[in-house]
Amino acid sequence: MNHAIDNLGFARVDVDRQTRQGVGEVVYGAGKSAAQIVEILRSLAAHGQSPALVTRLDAAKAAAVAAAMGADFTYFADAHLGRLGANRPADGRGTIAVACGGTSDLPVAEEAARTAEALGNTVVRLYDVGVAGLHRLLACSDALKAARVVIAVAGMEGALPSVIGGLVAAPVIAVPTSVGYGASFGGVAALLAMLNSCAAGVSVVNIDNGFGAGFLASRINHLGEAT
Amino acid sequence: MNHAIDNLGFARVDVDRQTRQGVGEVVYGAGKSAAQIVEILRSLAAHGQSPALVTRLDAAKAAAVAAAMGADFTYFADAHLGRLGANRPADGRGTIAVACGGTSDLPVAEEAARTAEALGNTVVRLYDVGVAGLHRLLACSDALKAARVVIAVAGMEGALPSVIGGLVAAPVIAVPTSVGYGASFGGVAALLAMLNSCAAGVSVVNIDNGFGAGFLASRINHLGEAT
Amino acid sequence: MNHAIDNLGFARVDVDRQTRQGVGEVVYGAGKSAAQIVEILRSLAAHGQSPALVTRLDAAKAAAVAAAMGADFTYFADAHLGRLGANRPADGRGTIAVACGGTSDLPVAEEAARTAEALGNTVVRLYDVGVAGLHRLLACSDALKAARVVIAVAGMEGALPSVIGGLVAAPVIAVPTSVGYGASFGGVAALLAMLNSCAAGVSVVNIDNGFGAGFLASRINHLGEAT
Amino acid sequence: MNHAIDNLGFARVDVDRQTRQGVGEVVYGAGKSAAQIVEILRSLAAHGQSPALVTRLDAAKAAAVAAAMGADFTYFADAHLGRLGANRPADGRGTIAVACGGTSDLPVAEEAARTAEALGNTVVRLYDVGVAGLHRLLACSDALKAARVVIAVAGMEGALPSVIGGLVAAPVIAVPTSVGYGASFGGVAALLAMLNSCAAGVSVVNIDNGFGAGFLASRINHLGEAT
Amino acid sequence: MNHAIDNLGFARVDVDRQTRQGVGEVVYGAGKSAAQIVEILRSLAAHGQSPALVTRLDAAKAAAVAAAMGADFTYFADAHLGRLGANRPADGRGTIAVACGGTSDLPVAEEAARTAEALGNTVVRLYDVGVAGLHRLLACSDALKAARVVIAVAGMEGALPSVIGGLVAAPVIAVPTSVGYGASFGGVAALLAMLNSCAAGVSVVNIDNGFGAGFLASRINHLGEAT
Amino acid sequence: MNHAIDNLGFARVDVDRQTRQGVGEVVYGAGKSAAQIVEILRSLAAHGQSPALVTRLDAAKAAAVAAAMGADFTYFADAHLGRLGANRPADGRGTIAVACGGTSDLPVAEEAARTAEALGNTVVRLYDVGVAGLHRLLACSDALKAARVVIAVAGMEGALPSVIGGLVAAPVIAVPTSVGYGASFGGVAALLAMLNSCAAGVSVVNIDNGFGAGFLASRINHLGEAT
Amino acid sequence: MNHAIDNLGFARVDVDRQTRQGVGEVVYGAGKSAAQIVEILRSLAAHGQSPALVTRLDAAKAAAVAAAMGADFTYFADAHLGRLGANRPADGRGTIAVACGGTSDLPVAEEAARTAEALGNTVVRLYDVGVAGLHRLLACSDALKAARVVIAVAGMEGALPSVIGGLVAAPVIAVPTSVGYGASFGGVAALLAMLNSCAAGVSVVNIDNGFGAGFLASRINHLGEAT
Amino acid sequence: MNHAIDNLGFARVDVDRQTRQGVGEVVYGAGKSAAQIVEILRSLAAHGQSPALVTRLDAAKAAAVAAAMGADFTYFADAHLGRLGANRPADGRGTIAVACGGTSDLPVAEEAARTAEALGNTVVRLYDVGVAGLHRLLACSDALKAARVVIAVAGMEGALPSVIGGLVAAPVIAVPTSVGYGASFGGVAALLAMLNSCAAGVSVVNIDNGFGAGFLASRINHLGEAT
Repeated sequence: MNHAIDNLGFARVDVDRQTRQGVGEVVYGAGKSAAQIVEILRSLAAHGQSPALVTRLDAAKAAAVAAAMGADFTYFADAHLGRLGANRPADGRGTIAVACGGTSDLPVAEEAARTAEALGNTVVRLYDVGVAGLHRLLACSDALKAARVVIAVAGMEGALPSVIGGLVAAPVIAVPTSVGYGASFGGVAALLAMLNSCAAGVSVVNIDNGFGAGFLASRINHLGEAT
Repeated sequence: MNHAIDNLGFARVDVDRQTRQGVGEVVYGAGKSAAQIVEILRSLAAHGQSPALVTRLDAAKAAAVAAAMGADFTYFADAHLGRLGANRPADGRGTIAVACGGTSDLPVAEEAARTAEALGNTVVRLYDVGVAGLHRLLACSDALKAARVVIAVAGMEGALPSVIGGLVAAPVIAVPTSVGYGASFGGVAALLAMLNSCAAGVSVVNIDNGFGAGFLASRINHLGEAT
Repeated sequence: MNHAIDNLGFARVDVDRQTRQGVGEVVYGAGKSAAQIVEILRSLAAHGQSPALVTRLDAAKAAAVAAAMGADFTYFADAHLGRLGANRPADGRGTIAVACGGTSDLPVAEEAARTAEALGNTVVRLYDVGVAGLHRLLACSDALKAARVVIAVAGMEGALPSVIGGLVAAPVIAVPTSVGYGASFGGVAALLAMLNSCAAGVSVVNIDNGFGAGFLASRINHLGEAT
Repeated sequence: MNHAIDNLGFARVDVDRQTRQGVGEVVYGAGKSAAQIVEILRSLAAHGQSPALVTRLDAAKAAAVAAAMGADFTYFADAHLGRLGANRPADGRGTIAVACGGTSDLPVAEEAARTAEALGNTVVRLYDVGVAGLHRLLACSDALKAARVVIAVAGMEGALPSVIGGLVAAPVIAVPTSVGYGASFGGVAALLAMLNSCAAGVSVVNIDNGFGAGFLASRINHLGEAT
Repeated sequence: MNHAIDNLGFARVDVDRQTRQGVGEVVYGAGKSAAQIVEILRSLAAHGQSPALVTRLDAAKAAAVAAAMGADFTYFADAHLGRLGANRPADGRGTIAVACGGTSDLPVAEEAARTAEALGNTVVRLYDVGVAGLHRLLACSDALKAARVVIAVAGMEGALPSVIGGLVAAPVIAVPTSVGYGASFGGVAALLAMLNSCAAGVSVVNIDNGFGAGFLASRINHLGEAT
Repeated sequence: MNHAIDNLGFARVDVDRQTRQGVGEVVYGAGKSAAQIVEILRSLAAHGQSPALVTRLDAAKAAAVAAAMGADFTYFADAHLGRLGANRPADGRGTIAVACGGTSDLPVAEEAARTAEALGNTVVRLYDVGVAGLHRLLACSDALKAARVVIAVAGMEGALPSVIGGLVAAPVIAVPTSVGYGASFGGVAALLAMLNSCAAGVSVVNIDNGFGAGFLASRINHLGEAT
Repeated sequence: MNHAIDNLGFARVDVDRQTRQGVGEVVYGAGKSAAQIVEILRSLAAHGQSPALVTRLDAAKAAAVAAAMGADFTYFADAHLGRLGANRPADGRGTIAVACGGTSDLPVAEEAARTAEALGNTVVRLYDVGVAGLHRLLACSDALKAARVVIAVAGMEGALPSVIGGLVAAPVIAVPTSVGYGASFGGVAALLAMLNSCAAGVSVVNIDNGFGAGFLASRINHLGEAT
Repeated sequence: MNHAIDNLGFARVDVDRQTRQGVGEVVYGAGKSAAQIVEILRSLAAHGQSPALVTRLDAAKAAAVAAAMGADFTYFADAHLGRLGANRPADGRGTIAVACGGTSDLPVAEEAARTAEALGNTVVRLYDVGVAGLHRLLACSDALKAARVVIAVAGMEGALPSVIGGLVAAPVIAVPTSVGYGASFGGVAALLAMLNSCAAGVSVVNIDNGFGAGFLASRINHLGEAT
């Protein structure tokens, strides 16, 4: 287990993860200063880890990072996601469908979609297809059935993954969002609904974790390449 | 506020509720002995409150009550419900549809259906129509749309009322059940999902409270008689 | 299940819901920008869905929407509710009583009342009738008993629906509010009390969901028109 | 702080608490064997602590204790309470009213009442006066207003103390019970309602803690003797 | 149950509560505007309810109320409490001891103390006597034992009422505070500890509810006057 | 959406799911009687759905089902799983590794493994490799890295998926178990840990849901066959 | 990281942990059959790991294990603890004091004490010294102050560690127990109180985890031997 | 139990705790004004308690305190910790290792490290060694094994202490942090994971309580001095 580490003191950057696991280390932006993020991105770039993603990056920090990194750095404001370097070529075996229940779920859905695109996937977006207007969802049946992986993003009662899970044969990654009020408890209601889905083939990531869903979908979508 | 009360010591029976509110007092059987239940039923019968219902009545107590009350007493084992006297004539204005997600939800659905029937309603049962097999639910669309009130019973992720709420124009009463395991927390997951339904026109009763749903549906179904 | 949808990209507007379910789509304002709300309202208006309601609309967004939509748009600041177009004629079969426990519950009660009025109902407001001063509630008995539906709004211990449920024969829709502190947990104490009401005929909507209560009350109040 | 202790190894009996605090040590029966309870009771009796109470005592242990202690020991099966020695003379300054919401709350109410009687108080029992049938409670107004302390016992939505708190000028001790199902969470719903009571003058003890309420009521009822 | 009510529209002021229950209505300031508070205070004053208290009053609203009401209005910034009119004469039968665990608990302790003083009680303050430095508490033993009622205010682990409950024969009113961090959950840890106190004679009010404790202590301290 | 349904009254069996989604309907055994299970299995067999699985099947019901179904029915006691018909040929593209933390997690791990085997996969079992003895896990590195999908089953602190997620490039399906005591809260501690995994590529199913993990792993393992 | 493992299939026994970490692997008995426990104990014994402890061992399994292992196996019924081999010599540097609040806490306290004794420590037991009778605790001051490590075991409000933490200079290990009822939530109230202790020098283990406390205390008590 | 107390009215300063327990009273800064902190620090300094620490001190208050106290006062912004006087000489018997999972955990880790250094210990910092990149942690094995006490700080899934607990023979103090989002619930997920650690020798302090861990580690590291 000897792997290259770049020890910056406040962080130990895993600079050969791309070789080892196919995708480089991703920077969790929420608890770090812009200066720390820049230093880590430079370390990753210096070791050929590209693209490098920064999640949970607010606009102010993003501006500071962009100023330091230049034109190679792109910020997706909707998704609170930064990317250093270009998307990988879209070499996944199929498409990834990202469906969400309502307009308010868009930031999380975009985080998933942008992550998947950065990691080399073609993404189909199916937004505002909540279960209370079933015809909107059923009108998207073909796109859903054609996908190799489906990401289902929903807040409030979180029923979308269960309904989709009954329609498709692909794995469904459920992402609860913190959209709602009162007894939604910041996404807990949706999370519990998804964990208790009566549809088989559904698994769940943390509340608002669009990145995690996009990352996992990409991993599944690249399976089978080298067998 | 002078109303007739029959004070039995351990209970004060409200013996003119039928006059006042249209339906007589209902006996909550869980915390009472068979002897206490018999005494209350006799008081209700003596004051012309009929039919009299006993909820949460287990089989052993039911046998004892039946032995004491004779042929006028009927026990619905599935629903854990006892009834003294006959069903009221089915004089509700429309039908009440009782839908449930899976076979395991049957006892709660039956408690709702038997209650509504006792109180003078025609009930249509639509069982095992969970959202993970949407075609089963859609095949029942006509019956759902024809109902004046819909009771939607579901455990696990509790998505059924949201989907039904988007299909019908009638009020939907959602009943979470304690069916499930792990993070269903005895029905809490379903309860939260129902409270957070993105469909309008849905309200919720307590976990496993089939009686409450049947009672409320009957009350709504009898509205308009006397306007 | 072919229904008209107006796909705006970020939203799929259900433009024949009024035909299908009697009331047009309602816009949940919390997670949308003013520009998005305006675009959706224009789509609804263009398809004859009127009035169109926007819930959870704060004052700043409301001003921007009003500037774009002109005189047809009304904002009810207390209720955080916007309305495009006029109230429907008050064609409900009876009155809807909206009762609340204290002055702090007013915004939620007003959301319920304004919603019901927009959808064609006559509303009677009974405010500050909390159970700790029972004579205030009992003084309103006649208005309560005359109502076809009662909406009971309360925070803190949430006892109002149980007491009202014992006084009237109409269906009672309970709305817990987030009013309180400490162990009220943002309305959870009131929510649990209402779910556990010992009075029959009570159902519950989400914390602070005045809109949902007003919508459901209207639906019940219009039952019987076309039977 | 030198006080007499009788160290039995598994327990250190506080044998001069009656002198110090007016009432002797009370034995919590739930976690002790019958043999241990007998040994502690003998120690208390040997040191003149009388009556000695044992709470949470089930019938089997009670029989064993009774066999060992003889006629001086009385077991109140309803209240799960054992008492060695006679009640103290009823020397409290006023009466203690014990009100409860329903028949299912009787065991907790009886634990409160028997405890208060053992400690020298006159108790008035007002049972089955839940708030969903307000006339039952209002019919007891005189007894409630005449009491020096009121104990209000309720499960489910736990609204009884709030309503009583608005009717009387005496201190109200609220006791939530574990009666209920579903979202009552073993008494948590009632507990929260009571903690959030909008009526002033109400305080709360643990779920099902009839003993604690009876003990505290007695302490309040004996205040003023020696000032 | 005919009692005088002054209906202000947004509030129904109970203007003969002082006659009925000994203490006038108290205004909960958190959910009301300064203008509403002023209007209610004027109604109370006009009907001879004095002093009138306003709880949960922040400094900005307090300044506005003070400007409107003039010199009769006093604001206690520490306690977030306003008072119109003078304290009642200190006619309670004994002293009320207010103990708190740490300096951070002072606002809640002061709310209790100021309330009790307004309602006619002599208060002894024993601050910063937390159980982790037992000698500080034991040094106050005499004052504690001399009190007719003890209010024990504590955050964090909330152990103070249990320890005091073992030292005194007076009733102990426990007030959990929201002081703490992490797993204190805004006072829930202290609340639970107090509800589970192994000391008899302890009851609990809501988190940070200094007013409720002071009010109840006053009620107990005035018992016995008129027997 | 016209699909064949076999309506048994208490259940609507989805008899062409195998055609539609590749795998037939699975029977949730917990809430059904043996007679109901037999009836459903016969319906599935009659429509060529094979193998048919029954989850959460206790030994008593299993014996009754076996008696009715004969030699085609196999019961895996460890996994509480019944299977009618033979395993599908192991035609998955790679192996599925099932790792678990301790001996107590075996039933859940076996449920996952048996499900995956029934659905046509080769399974490698790596049991008792909890993170507190890291060398046990590291000794299995080669088998983990060779797997196309990893199922990580753990109770208590639920750290296994995080550590495995850092070692492999395959998707990791985390299964929390209810193994533990005290603050494990029946698997909630492990569930939360897994949802918060700092390793990317991890998703989670419900507590003790070995079936769901095995089903999803099979679905992923069969991706790529038909592209 | 090459360490000897004895792979039994259902378990991988860590047979050189005693060499590596000073104490051999401990068997968690709750989720294992008697046969499995016997097999693991034989493996440990065969590799010289002595004594070997089995925690959470009920009486029935203990009898089966004792029958298989013979006289070398001792079962401590109070502590639900089995031990193969003799206690290690009491070579800890000081004494370990085990204090508990009440008689009901004895099983957990004994689990801690027996574990510490098995691992080579002298234990002083101080039982039934709960904070509601402070003189009982203060009478033990000398023993507490003389200890090198203190284990404080308590249920209900869990205040004991805070009070002891203010009296001694030694590290205090707090063990919440599940003793209590109602809002003790199976030990959660005590756990939270201990985590929020205002006394410094206190850390906490899981509810009822006497073994963990005894093990850690032993580890601390043996520090300094080899520096 | 006569100990010197300096009663400042709002606080009773324990001015001989250093003599009694080895370390002086520590000031909890969160609930106090700068003026109160200064007054307490002056009291401590006047009685020779040095160094005096102030925890949870924000930058604004720190500036005010620094202005009042002069050069003897040092503020560690990362750790939110103030110190009056110099560190005690590093006279602990061994080193204390402070490990943390990620960069976001640094403030808590620094609070632990600075506290331990102030109290006379040599600290080794091992930062960003989370379990999802195991090689980073294993690369620090020597430093971990050389420590006499290990403090393991982690947010999210909180697995670090379990993994470290399996590597070292020293006591491990686990500190959950509030780093995370969604179902981390402000550190609760990490706290639960740590309480349920399958590694023996681990105990836990409150969420974000770096001070408590540093204090306890110092206490353990100074054991053995005077035996």
